[in-house]
Amino acid sequence: MEKRIYNFSAGPAVLPEEVLLESQKDLFALPGVGMSILEISHRSKTFDAILQETKSNIKKLLDIPDDYSILFLQGGASLQFSMVPLNLMPPKNKADYILTGSWSKKAQKEAKRVGTVNVAATTEEGEGDKKYFKRIPKQSELKLDPDAAYVHFTSNNTIYGTQWQTEPLAGNVPLVCDASSDILHKKIDVTKYGLIYAGAQKNMGPSGVTLVIIRKDLLERSQDSLHTMLSYKIHAENDSLYNTPNTFGIYIINLVAKWLLNLGGLDKMYEINKKKAQLLYDCIDGSGGFFKGHSEKDSRSLMNITFNLATEELEKKLIDEATKAGFNGLKGHRSVGGLRASIYNAFPLKGVEDLVAFMKDFQKKNG
Amino acid sequence: MEKRIYNFSAGPAVLPEEVLLESQKDLFALPGVGMSILEISHRSKTFDAILQETKSNIKKLLDIPDDYSILFLQGGASLQFSMVPLNLMPPKNKADYILTGSWSKKAQKEAKRVGTVNVAATTEEGEGDKKYFKRIPKQSELKLDPDAAYVHFTSNNTIYGTQWQTEPLAGNVPLVCDASSDILHKKIDVTKYGLIYAGAQKNMGPSGVTLVIIRKDLLERSQDSLHTMLSYKIHAENDSLYNTPNTFGIYIINLVAKWLLNLGGLDKMYEINKKKAQLLYDCIDGSGGFFKGHSEKDSRSLMNITFNLATEELEKKLIDEATKAGFNGLKGHRSVGGLRASIYNAFPLKGVEDLVAFMKDFQKKNG
Repeated sequence: MEKRIYNFSAGPAVLPEEVLLESQKDLFALPGVGMSILEISHRSKTFDAILQETKSNIKKLLDIPDDYSILFLQGGASLQFSMVPLNLMPPKNKADYILTGSWSKKAQKEAKRVGTVNVAATTEEGEGDKKYFKRIPKQSELKLDPDAAYVHFTSNNTIYGTQWQTEPLAGNVPLVCDASSDILHKKIDVTKYGLIYAGAQKNMGPSGVTLVIIRKDLLERSQDSLHTMLSYKIHAENDSLYNTPNTFGIYIINLVAKWLLNLGGLDKMYEINKKKAQLLYDCIDGSGGFFKGHSEKDSRSLMNITFNLATEELEKKLIDEATKAGFNGLKGHRSVGGLRASIYNAFPLKGVEDLVAFMKDFQKKNG
Repeated sequence: MEKRIYNFSAGPAVLPEEVLLESQKDLFALPGVGMSILEISHRSKTFDAILQETKSNIKKLLDIPDDYSILFLQGGASLQFSMVPLNLMPPKNKADYILTGSWSKKAQKEAKRVGTVNVAATTEEGEGDKKYFKRIPKQSELKLDPDAAYVHFTSNNTIYGTQWQTEPLAGNVPLVCDASSDILHKKIDVTKYGLIYAGAQKNMGPSGVTLVIIRKDLLERSQDSLHTMLSYKIHAENDSLYNTPNTFGIYIINLVAKWLLNLGGLDKMYEINKKKAQLLYDCIDGSGGFFKGHSEKDSRSLMNITFNLATEELEKKLIDEATKAGFNGLKGHRSVGGLRASIYNAFPLKGVEDLVAFMKDFQKKNG
């Protein structure tokens, strides 16, 4: 069996080894079916069973009530940046956006093509090329319009390593969340949301499939004038089978969902995620300033741990040595620099422990 | 190793066994990389090498000139039904559509949301619920507008089993082709086309990835007002990496392309495809009317062979007995009824020979 390394990639990202091994078995021929999971018709009984089981497992994990539809679409979160305003903004044609990072800004950019965007809050700092985010706004900072079509926020910001500790309160206005980088990392109260969307490739599966959870009454906002593939209503009416979905992607999401259920569900996953992140933040905070966390403490992400060292040279040295030692993908995003350890659900505790040991050793030699 | 059956599914469809076995090997960890193909970043060197190799192999197979961009998008042909008019129709806001089946009609429906559609020809027959197509129009039947923004046609019609034997002549108007169900089945002269699009899941790979080949001058038609994910220009400028593409889908397309190159390229593939289809059409034509081909002889598809028997009962009996004997997916589309044998590139010659023997035996017992 090929040797595996520690994969800190921000996405596509590490998947559970159990999931990889099981999908590997089915890739030549699904047992009793005689065809690969890649070859079966999306209209076949075999695939329908997989689709229904995937929805049922996601529903179980997140306690999703019956008045929500669960969809599997294509185009990533980036296409949702357009689909959300195209479907949900009319007839009010105005929405609130809370900006906490680059992805929120990209979502806002597409929304502006559809209607009026009110920036309910932004935590952007710095000037020109040096702009950055390092925190989540407080509820008191939000300038929400009670008449907005919806309020949009990004639950976790991969680039900056910040995360909402609890979702913003939006009153009666539907809350729309881009949860691409922390979906399924803990249990959330879905009833607080109008719509949740998430590209699969960080916490759920391979790239090329997007989970959308939408409260059914919001489907009525989708106008008939919408291009068919951009209409939530059409996708919901056809149970994600209006056209051929990413069948393999859905199949992998199901294996990941089953892995989470076997693990003990999202409360158990959250415990493990807190433990993993705490190990790294403790290492950073206990380094006497050798490692400096990027995000403010009360905005810290459990998924992406971002930190800097005193100089770019030292950062490069650490990344180079870590890569040689089998810790892959630690280079921070160019807009923050430094290092970023993405430790999604599937990232093993042992990998975090080994990284911490490596960092401490590096500090000893270079501190 | 799991036993495999003969898979006549119209799509997602059969893939070469060599491709399945190779991808199975890499699914736990790519050799020398230590991560699964599902887990590597789309910005990594490993994936960039795969992306460039895939484009290069597709280019080689189809002799694509340098003034064309090769893109890998999401949303299937169905999203292309919208992207084509959104990008290419302005500023003329009129385009010609040739209707040869359900998919052409769906493409036309989305185009009407953008501008004026001139139906250059339709071969639809019948009334009400009983409408169908059984042939490709002759060049002399096409009422083309020399001032149209483009001419759209569907090269192969999966449901009806018809196929253009050679592409329509469109003069100086860019030819746009939905080649989802026959891409790479033979060499075509790409220079005759402005844009070719194809969902991968019939002749190229798994579902969830769409190949787009576009002449670069046409990219200038994409207006800045387009939603970012719907702009060919943006995708071309970012080499299909504006957002995370379906990385696994692209990887499989590359394995399929390599399989075709090893086989001897598209001329060799075309020879095999003609041989496979001929076996089935000979069986149908030589049955003395027991099997009746649906499409007209000069419009017959090499990919989807559609035929009927005298009664629905007999058709059901054949399908049931065939399914038990390991021939899967032969039921025709509800709008044509009867049987459909989809025999894409990867469908083995031996499977066609075995089906023909089975059909002859069935005729002997029931004729």
